[in-house]
Amino acid sequence: MSAIYHISLRPTRRDDVAAIIAMLADDHLGRARERLEQPLPTLYYDAFERVTSDQNIHLMVAEEGGKVAGCVQLCILPGLSSQGASRGLIEDVCVACDRRSRGIGEKLVQWALEEARGKGCKLVELLTHHTRVDAQRFYERLGFSRSHVGMTIRF
Amino acid sequence: MSAIYHISLRPTRRDDVAAIIAMLADDHLGRARERLEQPLPTLYYDAFERVTSDQNIHLMVAEEGGKVAGCVQLCILPGLSSQGASRGLIEDVCVACDRRSRGIGEKLVQWALEEARGKGCKLVELLTHHTRVDAQRFYERLGFSRSHVGMTIRF
Repeated sequence: MSAIYHISLRPTRRDDVAAIIAMLADDHLGRARERLEQPLPTLYYDAFERVTSDQNIHLMVAEEGGKVAGCVQLCILPGLSSQGASRGLIEDVCVACDRRSRGIGEKLVQWALEEARGKGCKLVELLTHHTRVDAQRFYERLGFSRSHVGMTIRF
Repeated sequence: MSAIYHISLRPTRRDDVAAIIAMLADDHLGRARERLEQPLPTLYYDAFERVTSDQNIHLMVAEEGGKVAGCVQLCILPGLSSQGASRGLIEDVCVACDRRSRGIGEKLVQWALEEARGKGCKLVELLTHHTRVDAQRFYERLGFSRSHVGMTIRF
């Protein structure tokens, strides 16, 4: 697929932030959570600074034809358990609605898995909303198992 | 309960690591994952250094009568989604087998929730193994909901 569509991955830049928020907001769960205004609220840029200043957090975008088509965030989490192996946590996997089914999500998640493995992780984990049945099938196809219950609390 | 048992929380020190690994290993899932040897393998101390050098990771222990009786790890994760609000991730909640049902786990998780809220998180998440039905009930009692599927991949 990549041979046809020329998908490339790179670290996120500050001028990608609006495109990422547009993707996150174009979703039945994301719509209510984001503020897709012009100009984009500065709180998103403040968050971008926090992300880039944390060396254990990696926010990547997929580009297709010079446009941001997807993103993934990988967090490398040190910890004592499992013989002190760091864990990888995948968050905010997102592909633009008009660019689905081209392997972009798979490329992003495979990148995260390789990066996590290279950083010494023995485990990569993620939470996916119980209504996202397609996402669960997608992750199972990539080798993930539904081993855990994902629990959340909102303030 | 705390009035009777005098439970106090404090950040983990290097000389707590062996007690924490002993707690993690004293569990049907943890047993196969840890190396409870004397002296403790240095990889645990290397991991402790990684944990303490990451200012977004907070590893707390509960002490009862001068002994480590439980622990929790809270990760504060910056991100773009949800209007740039950081997320809290709770990992490695553990209470010593002989000190259960005294409110130690609840104190540790409540600490993590308050800390996350204080750090600007709007959401705290965790994964709990699907077989840990008691843990799921415990988290529901503290206000968590079973909103997500927790998926993992091991290398």
